[in-house]
Amino acid sequence: MQAEIITIGDELLIGQTIDTNSAWIGHALSQIGVRVTKISSIQDDELEIKQQLDVSIPKADIVIITGGLGPTKDDLTKKVLNEYFGGNLIVNEKVQARNEAYFATRNRPNLAVNQQQALVPDNCTVLFNHNGTAPGMWFEKSNTIVVSLPGVPYEMKALMSDEVLPRLRENKQLKGLYCRTIQTTGIGESFLAEYIKDWENDVRKNGLSLAYLPSPGIVKLRLSSYSGEHEKVNRAIENLKTLIPQYFFAENDDSFSQIIGKILMQRKQTIGTAESCTSGKLANEIVKIPGASAYYNGSIVAYSYALKEKLLDIPSALLDKQGAVSKECVERMAMNGKEKLSVDYCIATSGIAGPTGGTSEKPVGTVWIAIAGPNGVEAQRFQFGQLREVNIELSCSNALRLLLNKLKNE
Amino acid sequence: MQAEIITIGDELLIGQTIDTNSAWIGHALSQIGVRVTKISSIQDDELEIKQQLDVSIPKADIVIITGGLGPTKDDLTKKVLNEYFGGNLIVNEKVQARNEAYFATRNRPNLAVNQQQALVPDNCTVLFNHNGTAPGMWFEKSNTIVVSLPGVPYEMKALMSDEVLPRLRENKQLKGLYCRTIQTTGIGESFLAEYIKDWENDVRKNGLSLAYLPSPGIVKLRLSSYSGEHEKVNRAIENLKTLIPQYFFAENDDSFSQIIGKILMQRKQTIGTAESCTSGKLANEIVKIPGASAYYNGSIVAYSYALKEKLLDIPSALLDKQGAVSKECVERMAMNGKEKLSVDYCIATSGIAGPTGGTSEKPVGTVWIAIAGPNGVEAQRFQFGQLREVNIELSCSNALRLLLNKLKNE
Repeated sequence: MQAEIITIGDELLIGQTIDTNSAWIGHALSQIGVRVTKISSIQDDELEIKQQLDVSIPKADIVIITGGLGPTKDDLTKKVLNEYFGGNLIVNEKVQARNEAYFATRNRPNLAVNQQQALVPDNCTVLFNHNGTAPGMWFEKSNTIVVSLPGVPYEMKALMSDEVLPRLRENKQLKGLYCRTIQTTGIGESFLAEYIKDWENDVRKNGLSLAYLPSPGIVKLRLSSYSGEHEKVNRAIENLKTLIPQYFFAENDDSFSQIIGKILMQRKQTIGTAESCTSGKLANEIVKIPGASAYYNGSIVAYSYALKEKLLDIPSALLDKQGAVSKECVERMAMNGKEKLSVDYCIATSGIAGPTGGTSEKPVGTVWIAIAGPNGVEAQRFQFGQLREVNIELSCSNALRLLLNKLKNE
Repeated sequence: MQAEIITIGDELLIGQTIDTNSAWIGHALSQIGVRVTKISSIQDDELEIKQQLDVSIPKADIVIITGGLGPTKDDLTKKVLNEYFGGNLIVNEKVQARNEAYFATRNRPNLAVNQQQALVPDNCTVLFNHNGTAPGMWFEKSNTIVVSLPGVPYEMKALMSDEVLPRLRENKQLKGLYCRTIQTTGIGESFLAEYIKDWENDVRKNGLSLAYLPSPGIVKLRLSSYSGEHEKVNRAIENLKTLIPQYFFAENDDSFSQIIGKILMQRKQTIGTAESCTSGKLANEIVKIPGASAYYNGSIVAYSYALKEKLLDIPSALLDKQGAVSKECVERMAMNGKEKLSVDYCIATSGIAGPTGGTSEKPVGTVWIAIAGPNGVEAQRFQFGQLREVNIELSCSNALRLLLNKLKNE
């Protein structure tokens, strides 16, 4: 089953908004076995929208459109779809009631432009939007499904998850799909492929399909059957796990932070960070997970030498001699941070994010990461590249990877 | 002058990579007066690439392609472009020398697949890539410019900035472009439009064009002349600034963090943060700016009640009575943080990011922000929405906005 995505909005074309919707939809569809073959971002323009539909509908089994459903005059999608599919706009009472209640509780008038949000074409299935004034719409034309969704990411995601994906899963072409994903770390894609070559040949011979999904520090492997062969998939996944215990770290799509959070929650342990070069980003990665307050206490960001001394008790002699970007400093940061934050584990980072501040001995991109835990402290040196933001990001993902390895082995 | 962007890569379609290149290119082109009319993301597939070129070339003055220039067999763009424009692949010696030196200094062999990176079509202008093995290529066909760039964002950006944009600026259609952008805050787009209506009518009558560029908390106004009328643009911008002194906060595209950094650097003042709900993200926003170490000392992230007491001296009686999400608590956090971090300004945040933890009095999305400075402390309550990550982001952007206002008035 093939899909095309159309995102509508001038703001996408002038680079004011990054189109994150397409990637989210592409990922969600690929999870249920639908392949996205094209993404088109087009202007809020009647002719452009119609021309794009003319091109996409014959090529795809499903076309997902986002954007252009707001109440202002720029937003043309509903009008155009109504004309394109030859419908008539009628009031949907459920949507109307929801929107009236919405404005009433906020003591704001339900202006004429907003009242129009309750109008829907009479030849579509209305997908009720709990999070906004614009409903989703589901059309069918000559064997192609055309779905129109709002462009606001959380409204779109809720409608995809609650309405679109469940309906698509019922489709006979997709009904047999069964897949499992495992995550590996510490090995690159091409080396992993070489390592599990025989296993891969076997699963392919067995009619299963395998996808490699690499991202910084992680390679995911997704194994799928399109004919409902749960047993075959399960057996192959269990075999794979025994084949690569040193690289395997999780099933499903959980991030490092999520997996770490689950382990700490289960073990009733706590965590904190003592950061220099990552300056709060590591703390933020941990706290992105809802419920993190159960295991995350807090952090000390000591960016200046003075605060490293004052807040983390790093001796000034150590800073003068070894410098802040050193094994000794980062280990002390982790140990003293553990103490001061009253946590079971403390991650510390210290490095030269760039673009300036490098030396021949410690060039830009040099980063030390240490983890102090119940069984002592360990540090590792990394050499990243020239770009400040990338160095900060890589420091965080590697710090979380090291912690996860440690937690798995304790 | 109209442009289309084509991004090539299966990873974009399955949502593994978010296409940030298009937005960057769209923004850069719009700055020099080129309008992007369409973005197409397509598969690594010969036929798809050729079909897309057939569609895009007749419609656009310039087509910018990114991706598909790597050394592996997935990467087809160069081969396809060479065929499409009827060229022959020849070795470019400058590229070859660069790539050989690159692998030699890393003690890695220059494999056959990598040697192919130095081959270029003989009918294009080669755009030398200092940051990677794949050169950019500039073709011209029936009045359309077709540029192919690597998909790695920092390689693409450097080639756009150093090679593509300067060449386009020389184009006669664009040579007259002169524009200035100012940033406003504290007023919504539609209210601003109403407020400056007469001024807007005047500049339009004068043949200048005006664009509103809204983003969370900020509305940018870009005023352009396409016929080199610097004087007219400058005069109108100065008039506008006197018209809206309470909303105007910066020229150009600087972020809050950048402007704050410049002011602090100039005044030789320092900053730190005492964070609860934003948990390090605010510190990270400040430190994103290269050179932040000149004015940023560090942060205390006190997520738990216990650490609020231990690290920020918040009295437990206050936490018990008013709670952490209160004016009293956030003001103390800011004042004590200022002291402990030895800074001139300290921003403090405390709120309920969600999805749980809300009460009828303090629902999810309630956030207090305080700033302590040389002239005392001030706090403000915000009510955001239901989504954890959005609440954390809005807390940060509003905190920086409040600080900037404070700095401007001191």
